[in-house]
Amino acid sequence: MRILIANVNTTETITQAIAEQARSVAAPGTEIIGLTPWFGAESVEGNFESYLAAIAVMDRVLAYEGPYDAVIQAGYGEHGREGLQELLEVPVVDITDAAASTAMYLGHAYSVVTTLDRTVPLIEDRLKLSGLYDRCASVRASGLAVLELEEHPERAVEAIVEQAERAVREDKAEVICLGCGGMAGLDELIRQRTGVPVIDGVSAAVTIAESLVRMGLSTSKVRTFATPRPKKVLGWPMKFGR
Amino acid sequence: MRILIANVNTTETITQAIAEQARSVAAPGTEIIGLTPWFGAESVEGNFESYLAAIAVMDRVLAYEGPYDAVIQAGYGEHGREGLQELLEVPVVDITDAAASTAMYLGHAYSVVTTLDRTVPLIEDRLKLSGLYDRCASVRASGLAVLELEEHPERAVEAIVEQAERAVREDKAEVICLGCGGMAGLDELIRQRTGVPVIDGVSAAVTIAESLVRMGLSTSKVRTFATPRPKKVLGWPMKFGR
Amino acid sequence: MRILIANVNTTETITQAIAEQARSVAAPGTEIIGLTPWFGAESVEGNFESYLAAIAVMDRVLAYEGPYDAVIQAGYGEHGREGLQELLEVPVVDITDAAASTAMYLGHAYSVVTTLDRTVPLIEDRLKLSGLYDRCASVRASGLAVLELEEHPERAVEAIVEQAERAVREDKAEVICLGCGGMAGLDELIRQRTGVPVIDGVSAAVTIAESLVRMGLSTSKVRTFATPRPKKVLGWPMKFGR
Amino acid sequence: MRILIANVNTTETITQAIAEQARSVAAPGTEIIGLTPWFGAESVEGNFESYLAAIAVMDRVLAYEGPYDAVIQAGYGEHGREGLQELLEVPVVDITDAAASTAMYLGHAYSVVTTLDRTVPLIEDRLKLSGLYDRCASVRASGLAVLELEEHPERAVEAIVEQAERAVREDKAEVICLGCGGMAGLDELIRQRTGVPVIDGVSAAVTIAESLVRMGLSTSKVRTFATPRPKKVLGWPMKFGR
Amino acid sequence: MRILIANVNTTETITQAIAEQARSVAAPGTEIIGLTPWFGAESVEGNFESYLAAIAVMDRVLAYEGPYDAVIQAGYGEHGREGLQELLEVPVVDITDAAASTAMYLGHAYSVVTTLDRTVPLIEDRLKLSGLYDRCASVRASGLAVLELEEHPERAVEAIVEQAERAVREDKAEVICLGCGGMAGLDELIRQRTGVPVIDGVSAAVTIAESLVRMGLSTSKVRTFATPRPKKVLGWPMKFGR
Amino acid sequence: MRILIANVNTTETITQAIAEQARSVAAPGTEIIGLTPWFGAESVEGNFESYLAAIAVMDRVLAYEGPYDAVIQAGYGEHGREGLQELLEVPVVDITDAAASTAMYLGHAYSVVTTLDRTVPLIEDRLKLSGLYDRCASVRASGLAVLELEEHPERAVEAIVEQAERAVREDKAEVICLGCGGMAGLDELIRQRTGVPVIDGVSAAVTIAESLVRMGLSTSKVRTFATPRPKKVLGWPMKFGR
Repeated sequence: MRILIANVNTTETITQAIAEQARSVAAPGTEIIGLTPWFGAESVEGNFESYLAAIAVMDRVLAYEGPYDAVIQAGYGEHGREGLQELLEVPVVDITDAAASTAMYLGHAYSVVTTLDRTVPLIEDRLKLSGLYDRCASVRASGLAVLELEEHPERAVEAIVEQAERAVREDKAEVICLGCGGMAGLDELIRQRTGVPVIDGVSAAVTIAESLVRMGLSTSKVRTFATPRPKKVLGWPMKFGR
Repeated sequence: MRILIANVNTTETITQAIAEQARSVAAPGTEIIGLTPWFGAESVEGNFESYLAAIAVMDRVLAYEGPYDAVIQAGYGEHGREGLQELLEVPVVDITDAAASTAMYLGHAYSVVTTLDRTVPLIEDRLKLSGLYDRCASVRASGLAVLELEEHPERAVEAIVEQAERAVREDKAEVICLGCGGMAGLDELIRQRTGVPVIDGVSAAVTIAESLVRMGLSTSKVRTFATPRPKKVLGWPMKFGR
Repeated sequence: MRILIANVNTTETITQAIAEQARSVAAPGTEIIGLTPWFGAESVEGNFESYLAAIAVMDRVLAYEGPYDAVIQAGYGEHGREGLQELLEVPVVDITDAAASTAMYLGHAYSVVTTLDRTVPLIEDRLKLSGLYDRCASVRASGLAVLELEEHPERAVEAIVEQAERAVREDKAEVICLGCGGMAGLDELIRQRTGVPVIDGVSAAVTIAESLVRMGLSTSKVRTFATPRPKKVLGWPMKFGR
Repeated sequence: MRILIANVNTTETITQAIAEQARSVAAPGTEIIGLTPWFGAESVEGNFESYLAAIAVMDRVLAYEGPYDAVIQAGYGEHGREGLQELLEVPVVDITDAAASTAMYLGHAYSVVTTLDRTVPLIEDRLKLSGLYDRCASVRASGLAVLELEEHPERAVEAIVEQAERAVREDKAEVICLGCGGMAGLDELIRQRTGVPVIDGVSAAVTIAESLVRMGLSTSKVRTFATPRPKKVLGWPMKFGR
Repeated sequence: MRILIANVNTTETITQAIAEQARSVAAPGTEIIGLTPWFGAESVEGNFESYLAAIAVMDRVLAYEGPYDAVIQAGYGEHGREGLQELLEVPVVDITDAAASTAMYLGHAYSVVTTLDRTVPLIEDRLKLSGLYDRCASVRASGLAVLELEEHPERAVEAIVEQAERAVREDKAEVICLGCGGMAGLDELIRQRTGVPVIDGVSAAVTIAESLVRMGLSTSKVRTFATPRPKKVLGWPMKFGR
Repeated sequence: MRILIANVNTTETITQAIAEQARSVAAPGTEIIGLTPWFGAESVEGNFESYLAAIAVMDRVLAYEGPYDAVIQAGYGEHGREGLQELLEVPVVDITDAAASTAMYLGHAYSVVTTLDRTVPLIEDRLKLSGLYDRCASVRASGLAVLELEEHPERAVEAIVEQAERAVREDKAEVICLGCGGMAGLDELIRQRTGVPVIDGVSAAVTIAESLVRMGLSTSKVRTFATPRPKKVLGWPMKFGR
């Protein structure tokens, strides 16, 4: 089975980290292909960048030439998943949803710890649209930007652990979701510090994508995610970066 | 005062119809500038096309060189409004929200009548995110595509009136929102047929945008719609169409 | 166009302040008529006083003899709007709703700052009934009674600013609604202090009423707000004060 | 123990029917005093009439001179209960709430059958405000006005039974609440026809009021229902009818 | 009238305390029979113990040989009420629901003060399922286990009062529900300390059960609580303890 | 990896069918152990039977002597999952939740098709408690009892297909969940008939349990699902059937 995992930003090192994390949990026989969009922001932290990423991910995935069995969108709280679901037959899994639906099997309520405060409403809104918000105790921001996670991992861990601890103590979270693709790999460390299960969205998404493929399931095409009707679309596919 | 009104699709005649409708309700002294995106679908009827439109509208608005006081996004249930709000200081009004918030002043519950069934969940989701769904009795589809509205206006009226009547009778709607930019101008006719107030989103959006400007209000920049942080963004602004 | 703006309490100086505020935002050609009820409390701060005001406002508006195009009820969180909607054909706008629906165009969440703690549940309940509560971050009380706002404007500003700042910082509000008719005129000052848009309900209501009239819209009469059936009503219209 | 039961309309025969119904379920030692408002509509079927009734009931109850232990407001979906709660120390029970909270002990979901379609939103809104709407399967209108219930009891029964049957079959109601004070006494008959428990709000309210008194409970005065602050209130108490 | 009141745990002294509390509020002519389950935990503080109690209470009630008119399940936030409703014709009242529905007549919002933090989600979930959660301001834990309430009543009072005070001050509760059968009898003392009405669930349940019986109402059998279909049930009735 | 899958009823052939279905989707190296409770109903179709099953499943799982990595509770809409989560360290997956969370990856809304109408509220309530109800379009009953599914598979398919088709057409479901353990194996057939993805809860649960184990995740023990405190529990473990 081959799973494409699309980074939402154009920073290649993050793509590599995500793909590596995905491979570490993938079943034997699952091939993970990391994709970096050809345009968009070096890190995605807000609506404009997220909308641009939505299109850049669709563009990049459609340009992938080989066969594949599922697609993972590896951005936390980002736009675009529904567009991929329209364009593709294979299952599409967003890591925001994957972390949340996994967390709900392990505790009565979960919290998300993410990067900047400005992305909190995006994550809350995506979880609401996905129907996975009811058991969300809180979405908390560590105050660190995506790229700072890469530069100062030890500071990132401290900031994330602090918010995770407050989520458990004050918001009554029983599980923590790491709310950023760039946090991949920190889960075990944080689990030790907080004493509650910590969900890495990339890992969760890989197992869900594998499961959907294994059960022979694909996106429903009867209504919301029906294939776009044939029509004139100017400027698509995009030319940038090819 | 100058208001930009952005069509979400690339069909120039729809831009003209929208701008004309906007001008018919605009206050003396309000200048309406219709904008057609430089890329994207000729009509927007689903998530992929809507996400592409989101970026195309941002691209087109940013490329507008003169000063302006407010922006209207003239697509029903489309993505992208939050991105514009980040990029701009001036108020941004989506016609979906404008129709709904106006309808709520006139009746206890409103329904939306739109084009294709596949766009119903998009409209419902946008209204939920905007916090304007509580008094929504239903979103109903006429079954006619956007471009068919232009080609067969009399059939469009029949199909829309039928759904509007069922919304009033079965769903207990007391106001009808015309759920498509391309329906601009049909409101008076339909009002006569159904006996309830009919809201045209473009008209509603113009008056709301004017009001916000008149009160000196602009988008809050403290959190969700803060200006994007300076960073490297590949391929932006887009080159297509210039 | 003539708009009646009804104070909910019997304090004439508040009527004047409200009407003045309304005039400052009204479009050229809009005439504002301030109405003071002939009975009821000198300030409205609770359910009994609010119910009495509901009837007193209906009584006063019905007694107005000239023609008019819209009515504004200038009380925050008060009862009665639905009654006016039944009795009149012209649009009726409550300032609570007007402030909230306007705020939602400018930020992801809004808070209301009002007078006494006891009025907080009234405002929350009115926003819920109006379907405008979803994006409400909080309703906060400054602890100052309505009439104290008039007597000690500088203390009022301090108390309101403090609650507004906490709403932004703790409750994640991105817009502030001034939750009291008597606060009209403080908006600009508070905007400077808090850095977020501040909505004055009276101003918002004037622009909305003007817009509804301009679009030729009036209250839906098919169900909830249908004209009362002809029947014997003892003691109505009321005799007090004429 | 003495319980005042206030009719919301000015039709004396309805007061008598309500009081009789109340007496039929009252415990030994409970004295029922029926009160008819001194002003207001002969029947209450909409917001204007309901707001007027709210004040008329407060006026009538305050004018009652003897001691009493609890007050029942015997109107379905009417305004005003919160005002009485502010003005009085003794418990106040609205029959809308009483029927709903009683129904929830007997089935998973309940429906209300009321008179005219225009009162349906009032009942729904009151149940929402009272926090008793979650298990409401539907509110259905029989299409008969309040006074028609008195004039044509056999037609009323047929119309109510039909809606009750549809509520059970189509809306999955397991209990029926008779949504009108004037329906008092029909419960047993309708129970036989529909096979599900039928709640008469007056009876339910009497037992709840008695229970609250027996437990020595009274309205909380710390916030929402605190006694109105002393202030100048023009025209109150009202002079009409004395 | 005879009412069975079933303790959920196997501690006989708690049964006696509950029955005594029930008798203190019961109407003349109401006989209270306390039942202690024949198996299960000495105190119920979590899901496993609560599920076991659910079956133990059904087992014990079915084994009661005389006639009876209603059953009260005297555990806070426990499972099982729906099972009893299926097995019996007579009304079944859970003290969690009884306290909540009673509290809602006395204030705009109520809080529950219970024993251990781990039982908070159970209580919240039961209130949600019963449709009585909308007006719940908070569920707070005193940190004391059920049996500690019996051993150290003065410490229990202090811990409960502290949480009740915080519920009123911070969560805006206007009424307090004592969230544990073992707290029966502390209500008057706590009411004096907090100044708000305090509801004892056992007392509330007795008056509700009496009221339902007096009105001749019984559990609806059309759907959710229909009598179980005849089938082979191994090991039932249980043999333990007889 | 070894996964225990517990039937909720005492019909051995259903256990075998469930285990077979589980094995058909299990990954290489996953051992599936089917468990039949030692007491309880031959089929579970209501609250009493479901509560009894809750305890019987806990009893049976605790009596299993070998090591295991996860437990699946294979009943649709049944009680008990939270009890298992308290008693065990390993992940516990309920097939109701598994089907729903899987369906949400494939369509905008899902419906459940189950057996008898009386079990519909149980399923709805379980989905609400699990936080997976927001995207549920409907729960529909085929009208066939659990054991009839076994006896008349062809009639079962017809009845289920009819409800599935109505769910898609009338309720706008885009995915169907087979709402009964006994329906395992019918999914492919029904998928062909309805054209939408069909989720078998047992299969979904197996892949989710495997995924949780593979990621090294286990139930959070900080609050709701903390291990029961040591105390005297009469009659436990149960003796029946050993």
